[in-house]
Parts: sequence; structure tokens; C-alpha cells
Amino acid sequence: MFDSIYQDDTIAAIATPFGSGAINVIRVSGKEAFEIVARLFSPKLDFAEIKSHTIHYGKISDENGKVIDDVLISVFKNPRSYTGEDSVEISSHGSPFIAQKIAAALTAGGCRLAEPGEFTKRAFMNGKMDLAQAEAVADLINSRAEASLRGARNQLDGILSAKINDLRKMLIDVSSLVELELDFAEEDIEFLSLKEVDEKIDAVISEIDLLLKSYSFGKVMRDGVNVAIVGEPNVGKSSLLNYLLKESRAIVSDIPGTTRDVIIEEVSIDGILFKLFDTAGLRSAKNEIEREGVFRSKETVKTADMILFMTDASEPFPEKLFKTVAELINKKNIIKVFNKADLIDEPDILRGGVLISAKFGDGIDELFRRMKEKATSAGTYSEKSAVVSNVRHFDALKKSKDFLLKAKETIANNFTGEFIAADMRNAESALGEIIGKVTADDILNNIFENFCIGK
Amino acid sequence: MFDSIYQDDTIAAIATPFGSGAINVIRVSGKEAFEIVARLFSPKLDFAEIKSHTIHYGKISDENGKVIDDVLISVFKNPRSYTGEDSVEISSHGSPFIAQKIAAALTAGGCRLAEPGEFTKRAFMNGKMDLAQAEAVADLINSRAEASLRGARNQLDGILSAKINDLRKMLIDVSSLVELELDFAEEDIEFLSLKEVDEKIDAVISEIDLLLKSYSFGKVMRDGVNVAIVGEPNVGKSSLLNYLLKESRAIVSDIPGTTRDVIIEEVSIDGILFKLFDTAGLRSAKNEIEREGVFRSKETVKTADMILFMTDASEPFPEKLFKTVAELINKKNIIKVFNKADLIDEPDILRGGVLISAKFGDGIDELFRRMKEKATSAGTYSEKSAVVSNVRHFDALKKSKDFLLKAKETIANNFTGEFIAADMRNAESALGEIIGKVTADDILNNIFENFCIGK
Repeated sequence: MFDSIYQDDTIAAIATPFGSGAINVIRVSGKEAFEIVARLFSPKLDFAEIKSHTIHYGKISDENGKVIDDVLISVFKNPRSYTGEDSVEISSHGSPFIAQKIAAALTAGGCRLAEPGEFTKRAFMNGKMDLAQAEAVADLINSRAEASLRGARNQLDGILSAKINDLRKMLIDVSSLVELELDFAEEDIEFLSLKEVDEKIDAVISEIDLLLKSYSFGKVMRDGVNVAIVGEPNVGKSSLLNYLLKESRAIVSDIPGTTRDVIIEEVSIDGILFKLFDTAGLRSAKNEIEREGVFRSKETVKTADMILFMTDASEPFPEKLFKTVAELINKKNIIKVFNKADLIDEPDILRGGVLISAKFGDGIDELFRRMKEKATSAGTYSEKSAVVSNVRHFDALKKSKDFLLKAKETIANNFTGEFIAADMRNAESALGEIIGKVTADDILNNIFENFCIGK
Repeated sequence: MFDSIYQDDTIAAIATPFGSGAINVIRVSGKEAFEIVARLFSPKLDFAEIKSHTIHYGKISDENGKVIDDVLISVFKNPRSYTGEDSVEISSHGSPFIAQKIAAALTAGGCRLAEPGEFTKRAFMNGKMDLAQAEAVADLINSRAEASLRGARNQLDGILSAKINDLRKMLIDVSSLVELELDFAEEDIEFLSLKEVDEKIDAVISEIDLLLKSYSFGKVMRDGVNVAIVGEPNVGKSSLLNYLLKESRAIVSDIPGTTRDVIIEEVSIDGILFKLFDTAGLRSAKNEIEREGVFRSKETVKTADMILFMTDASEPFPEKLFKTVAELINKKNIIKVFNKADLIDEPDILRGGVLISAKFGDGIDELFRRMKEKATSAGTYSEKSAVVSNVRHFDALKKSKDFLLKAKETIANNFTGEFIAADMRNAESALGEIIGKVTADDILNNIFENFCIGK
């Protein structure tokens, strides 16, 4: 089915992060992997004799026979490799220059440099994993907090895939019976009453609804929570930030692709990633440049999952700023944070907010609890529950549900089984897209192109 | 000898460069490596049964049994490992978060996080390589151009070490005979005439001189050539730079530790790394801030190995600026570059410089040739020659030579063989420092501390 995009040539790529380190790994996969590596490696290896999953020490040379480095090569024989093809991993000294030279020698020797995600795409093509699992590989690599790791693991372990396959099987079983009915229509044998079909469809719909509902939690798990911090100048935003960073055992790593000038920090609270966004520009603009800042801050607030609306507890509540924010986002996503608790002695002004002292740390635990509570307000899921965290899966589930609703309508309108079966088959296909049973080439390409090179 | 700094506990470290990629590798080495990994890994592995150099697929969990990731573990049994100890390399999905979690699980399980260079230090301690070879490992990782790679490979292959050992052997042989002479002094048996001893010492000195002489080339190989580009504003420095970058098939990578605001670019010409430094501040200062710039630019010129003095061929030669530069550095290290060759028709103004057009690319090849010629004016060496590229080795060779000169003086002054032998032993010890036969703990620590973590 995927002939159009499956290529069986031999690919190579540097698989470790770019930079200097102790080790770099260069991956090779494809039907000529052994042949190409053998030509560059000494001592001479007889790959036919070598066992899979063994490691060999030697020197790798460029196409002119000039030694590049001492390396270890790990040999994986098809189908017992990540891609399912013959594969070699070359472990070299960790200079990017050396890694590039080895990659260049491999391409000179007959490899093609791999596209992003091409190793995983091959694993998918060769049935080593389904599409949802392949996507989980990318999520795993991007995971930066406990929850995103758990979510990706859950999906890689096939928990979502198993659930999707259960639902597909239910639909196939029922639609087969409906189709059988068609064949025997003239003989008046009824395998299944329309009422039963309708009930089976309802059962699938309610399972799909559960999955759809899990998405808001899954999204939090996978992508974290976007938190905009709003407040007048000097209410203590940076003190709060320092406290958050210290108390949250922050996982702070380089994040390619995020707009560094807007994200202030990422913190992990009980394993959930909170991305803190600055909205310093959110006040009345005095000039053109400030207006630009206001505009950007408004966008930040609009797209945030949560607002920390921070005020100075010893000052009057900034009603006007609050009104501006409340117009941009659902009020229930706002947490009012009253800072400088140490300066006041009437905590009854709280009005549903959290009283903290960013200076002394009072109330921070309560703030964490509230942030986590809001982040997981859609419910939590056990590690063994199927959870949807990917918008592509969410859309496919919705599409499947729509076909099932149409099937119910078809039943209600007393159309023939032919139409009912067609709707159910479409619903099943929509589910199949999630695990890659039926997925257009461009969707596949789109998925894998967002992987890093070498995976 | 090294008991004081050799620790036989089990160490672990992330060995791949920091960041996101397809794969990260976490290294474990030490006598409990198998035991600790076995406790975190499933399926259960019986390391006693497993062969060295084999790879095993499974899941690695944290100390609470929570799965962190699917991994491949590579098993190396002592002494057949990099360190010479039992070792495991854990290859995980390339998220830094996952790598950190695995490292944390290993430390919770009984490993200690490795110091920088500690794996290589253990390799040295266990006799897997000598000290010069260990240093070559760091050079190899830092290599960013063909010449530095060649130099490090040469040293890792033990070519310098073999030469040093030859010289040590010569000294030991002679001094043994001199010492033997002492024992038999009363019996009047002469094993070796003083003249012969003197000649042998001369032979060693001349070999040392060759090695000392190779240092200026070795340094170029290892560290590259610092080139300061000097010129009045608007003489075409940035056009030249663009051309250099395009024509040199530049290897440009992130270089930790360099002062990014001063280095403009690195280019590799015929495998030699040229680091181009800006000296924009080098003109008469109008104010305090400019004076600071002038000062810094003067320092850049002083410490440069080579100056590209760039002028506009269609303008009068900037005698004053040239004089300033010529006072700071040996004139023979200056290459005059006359730009805008396309604007003049009298190339006889060259005065030993190179006429180029940075705009059209004329003369760039000649400039490259001149730069390379100057860089290798100390001579070139074949790939199999012993070359000194490390200042520590250079200093040890000088020290050794000083002891040998002292020995010759001792001979000339007709001192007894006892003194001669002592000088020769000291000379031999100085050579031994290079390969780590006799090296103080603090020197060793200093060497390995400059490695990256995980190596």
C-alpha cells in the first residue's frame, strides 16, 4: 500500500544530538547496510557469519582508505532491528567533525542521508510498530516532564492502539453481519436486528466519547500547560518565578522551536510541565512600540491554558486589568494570586484567590496545588488507560463518531443495510487512520517530517 | 602507584552530547556495573551467562520499578572494554529528560556520577592506553578539521608514544651500563667509554630536538592557526570573509569556550583550521569606549599566528596602520592583501602582497596558498611521523633535554658515573611523564578534568 513512499535503499544519519560529547552514534539501515559498512571497516568482517546483536571493535575509514576513527559497530540483522532491516550503529568518538566525516564516507559508499524520521517510518512500514506508536517515539524524544514521558510510554506500549483495534473489531464484526444480511436478504434470515446494530454502535460511540474526553488531559500530559503570568509592574512576578523554579525541581532544557523571547521558564510540578509565558506588555500602551507589546501579550493570554493573575495584596485590586484579561479567556482558567501576604493582615480579601508571599514562600504549595488541580480538572487517568494526546487522533475519533451518528440516522430512517454498512466501514477506516491502517501518503510524510534526523 | 586517585567504585554518565536527538547513550563502568544495571533492567539478564560485546533489548526502570524507557544495552566484560572494567552502555530514546532519569536511576542504584574524563582515566589506569594516548582522545573529540583529526589519530595510534619509549630505552640502556661501570669500578672493567656515553646522549638530544621542532607544526595541527584580519573600514573584509567561507568548504561548528564576540569564523583550508579574528577596533580611538576596542584589537594581533593586512589597492597604502601592526608582531607573519584588484591596472604595487578581488574571487586561491604556506612554514610531517602537539609534552621534552645537557656537562667536568647516571635517569623520567610512566596526581587530575563528562 505504501510502495509510493517506501524506499528500500540504504540510509544513514547521525543519531545522537549535535555537539561534542564522549560518543556519537551514526545509524545505517537498509539492504546494503552490511556491504557498505564492511567496505569502510577494518578488520574485515564477514557479516554472513556475524551474529545479530553483537559489537565489533575496529577502524572506520573514508572512501579513500584514510582512517577516520576507532569505532564500535553494533550489528542488527533483519528483522531484529529497529527498522526491521539490516542495520548497523557506529559508535565513534564524540566530535561532530568525526561524525560528519563518517556520515560522508557512508554516503560516498552508497548510503543516502536519511530524511527526518525515516528510520521510524521504515519501522512502521515493516510492521515493527503502528502509526500511533511511531508518533509516540517522537513524543518520547520530546518529553520533558514525567507526565509527557508517561503519556508517550503508554502510547508506545500500544495501549491506545489496542483500544482502537478493539473498537475497529467491534465495527467490523457488526458491519460484516449487516453485509451478510444483505447477501441473505432474499432468504429472510436475520442475523442481527437493527436494534441490536444500533445498540452496538452506541457502545462504540460511548467508548469514543471516553477517548475524546481524555484528550484535554492527554494534551496536558503531552504538551504541558501554557501559563500566562499577568500583573502590573512590581507586583512580584520575578520573585514568584524564582520560587517556582526552586521549588519545582525544574527540568529546564533547551527547547528548539519555541519562541525564547516569550517563554520565560518551564517548571515541572508533580510531573506536569508548566510553560510560563510573560505578558509584560499587557497595560495601556503609550506609543506604537508599546501597542505591539500589548497586542502580543493579548495573544499570549488568549492562547494560554491558565492565567496567573498576580496582584499586590496591599494595593487596591486592579479591576481594569482584570476585566481586560477576563474578556480574553474563560474566567475559570484564571487563578488570582495575591502577593506580599506578609504586608497585610486581612486574608479575607482573597475572593477565591491564593494568598502568597513570593518573598518568603508562604502559600506557594497552595498555588502549586491549585495549578495542578486546574491542569487536571478534566480528570486523571491511570497508567493503563488509553489516553488521546495527539490532535490527529482526536480528529480521527471525531470523524469516526460522525460516521457512526450517520449510521444511526440511517437506521432510524430505515435505509437498507448497504448504507448502514458503508457508514460503519467509514467509521472503522477513520479509526484505522490513527494506527496507520489507512493513511494517505501526505499525512504520513507530514508525521515523519516532524521527527528529528536519525530517528 | 596511582592508588591514591584510582577508585574502583562504579561510575555512570550520559556519554552523548546534551540535547534532543534520536539516541542518547548512558555509560556505566565498574565492578558493580552488571549488578546495578541488572536490577533496573527487564527481562532479567544473567550477566554471568551473557557474552561480552552483545546487545540486549528491554526496558529500564527507575529505582521504584517504574519503566523509564525501552533501551538497548551493550555489555562489555572486563578486560575487553574501554575502561578495562565491566561496562554497560545503555542506548535510550534521545530525550535529555529520559537520559537524566536513567542516570538518576543508576545513581540511586549504587553508581556514582563520573567526573569529566573518568572513563578514560580508568582506561589509562588499567593500562588500556598510555597518557599521551589518553590525551589524544580529548584532542580527537575536540578535532574540527582534517589536520587536528590526523594529529590526534597519530597520537592515539601511539606513534609519539613509541618514539618516546625508544628514547627512554636508549637512555635506560646507557645509564644501566654507566651504573654497571660503577659496580665494577674497582675491577677496572670499562663497558662504555665516556666518549661513547656522550655520543649516545647527543643522539637522544638530536631526536628530542626533532620532536621539539615538530611542535610548531603540531600546534597548528591540533589548535589551528589564529588569523587576525586587520584593515581600515570598507576595504572589503566582510566580502573576503564570505569568500573564504564559501571556498573553504568550511567546517563551522559550535565551539564551547571560545569568545564568540571576537572570533568571526573558522575555515578549514586543505584540512588546516584557520580561526579568523576581528580587529575592527584597530584605528585611532576617539573616546574611552573606542580606546577599549583598540586595546582588545592590539591583544588580538599580538597573540595571532598570522595577520591578513587588508587594504584597498585603489587607495594609498595605510602606512600608519601597518606600522602599528608591524610593531606588535613579527613581520614575517603578515600577509598583505590588496583588495579591489578589479579597480586597478598596475599590479606592480603589490610589494610582496597578494592581489585579490573579494568581489569577484580573483586571487583567493593564491591567498589560500600563502596562508597554508605560512601555517606550515615549520615543515610538514608525514602521517607516520611522531609529532608533538601538546604543550605538556613540549615542556617535558625540554626538561629532558636540559637534564641531558647537564649530563654532558657532568661528563665534560669528569664527574663520576654516579652523577652522569642520575642526570640520565632524570632525563628518562621527564620523557616518562609524557606517556604517564611517572606523573604526579595533580597533573593527571588536571589532564582528565579537561575532558567532557562521559568520556
